[in-house]
Amino acid sequence: MATIKLHGNPFSTATMRATASLYEKQLEFEFVMIDMKNGEHKKEPFLLLNPFGQVPAFEDGDLKLFESRAISQYIVHEYADKGTQLISSDSKKMATIRMWMEIESQRYDQVASKLVWELAVKPMYGLPTDPAAVEQAEGMLSTTLDFYEKTLSNSKYLAGECFTLADLHHLPTIHYLMNTPSKKLFESRPHVTAWVADITARPAWSKVLAMQPNLSDK
Amino acid sequence: MATIKLHGNPFSTATMRATASLYEKQLEFEFVMIDMKNGEHKKEPFLLLNPFGQVPAFEDGDLKLFESRAISQYIVHEYADKGTQLISSDSKKMATIRMWMEIESQRYDQVASKLVWELAVKPMYGLPTDPAAVEQAEGMLSTTLDFYEKTLSNSKYLAGECFTLADLHHLPTIHYLMNTPSKKLFESRPHVTAWVADITARPAWSKVLAMQPNLSDK
Repeated sequence: MATIKLHGNPFSTATMRATASLYEKQLEFEFVMIDMKNGEHKKEPFLLLNPFGQVPAFEDGDLKLFESRAISQYIVHEYADKGTQLISSDSKKMATIRMWMEIESQRYDQVASKLVWELAVKPMYGLPTDPAAVEQAEGMLSTTLDFYEKTLSNSKYLAGECFTLADLHHLPTIHYLMNTPSKKLFESRPHVTAWVADITARPAWSKVLAMQPNLSDK
Repeated sequence: MATIKLHGNPFSTATMRATASLYEKQLEFEFVMIDMKNGEHKKEPFLLLNPFGQVPAFEDGDLKLFESRAISQYIVHEYADKGTQLISSDSKKMATIRMWMEIESQRYDQVASKLVWELAVKPMYGLPTDPAAVEQAEGMLSTTLDFYEKTLSNSKYLAGECFTLADLHHLPTIHYLMNTPSKKLFESRPHVTAWVADITARPAWSKVLAMQPNLSDK
């Protein structure tokens, strides 16, 4: 088997998304640490892997990819016979999984990432949080989570009874948001709460978090 | 074959994305017009098809979907043997197609849609354009299109020598931007210009545009 390399940073949500997929598929891979504090992602040689200067970047033999959701999709399709299934061979079930991947990407992540930035990243760098931006994003996330709550009252996971890539893609932002006041948006919805507890308890996810060294300033 | 229904509006970029896929696959479908001026997309029965109140929504027999990129992906996978191929059975080529679909969705569309809003939609409703928002979005789109230019100097289309879903997803925003001052960002790049000319000349795309009735106030 060709050597898989993931170039990234264990604190980056996009890197964590790709790493979670690799662990769920029980694949061996080499993790190449990119030192973002020193701007390594904005310089060559990293720019040869991702010209937009964002982690992660991925290699499998001569295939080079970036964009975390493209990496995770390649992994689950290419290594369909390994680890957790995460997709479906039934075309209509797969359509629903893809719809939920789009809801995550187009709707959930747009606001969840804003909240992670305002409430988790900015305080870490001593930057002031923008309360108006938080209020607006929380309002939008609340509307989105209403539909999640309704869906999860009918099925254990977003796209049915099995954990899929659609659930997995949410994990990194949920992880950070559960350490901010925005966790109330999840905790006030019982089916969303049960889903968060279930997906964050997965062994593969523990391995992703174990890659984060303890921060002395935390 | 089950009856395909697309509920949408022929002027909506997301609807146009789904319609383009249906025409490329030479599928028969029923188009259900949603009167957005009268807020039909924010009321039942449309909300039963898409709880977020956005066009389009899609039905194929008992399958119901929303999110235009999930609809187009379902169409090309389910009807792989019809019309234009648009995807690849080679897993590494498919990975590159998916990477380009993510670049469109995560990077290109985020700013292209802002420019469509500022320069095409707002003037239609008599709303003032925000020059600072346009300048910022044009700067970001310019950086993105630099990578497109480099890619398209090596291959005819974004993901190789064949027109794929990754190219198709760009069509609706390109169509509107080519009628705004932002067209300079495309026209100043020769390979991007050739690509735009090629993909907008496709017969399936002409059929999408033919669905738009002439606007008397244009």
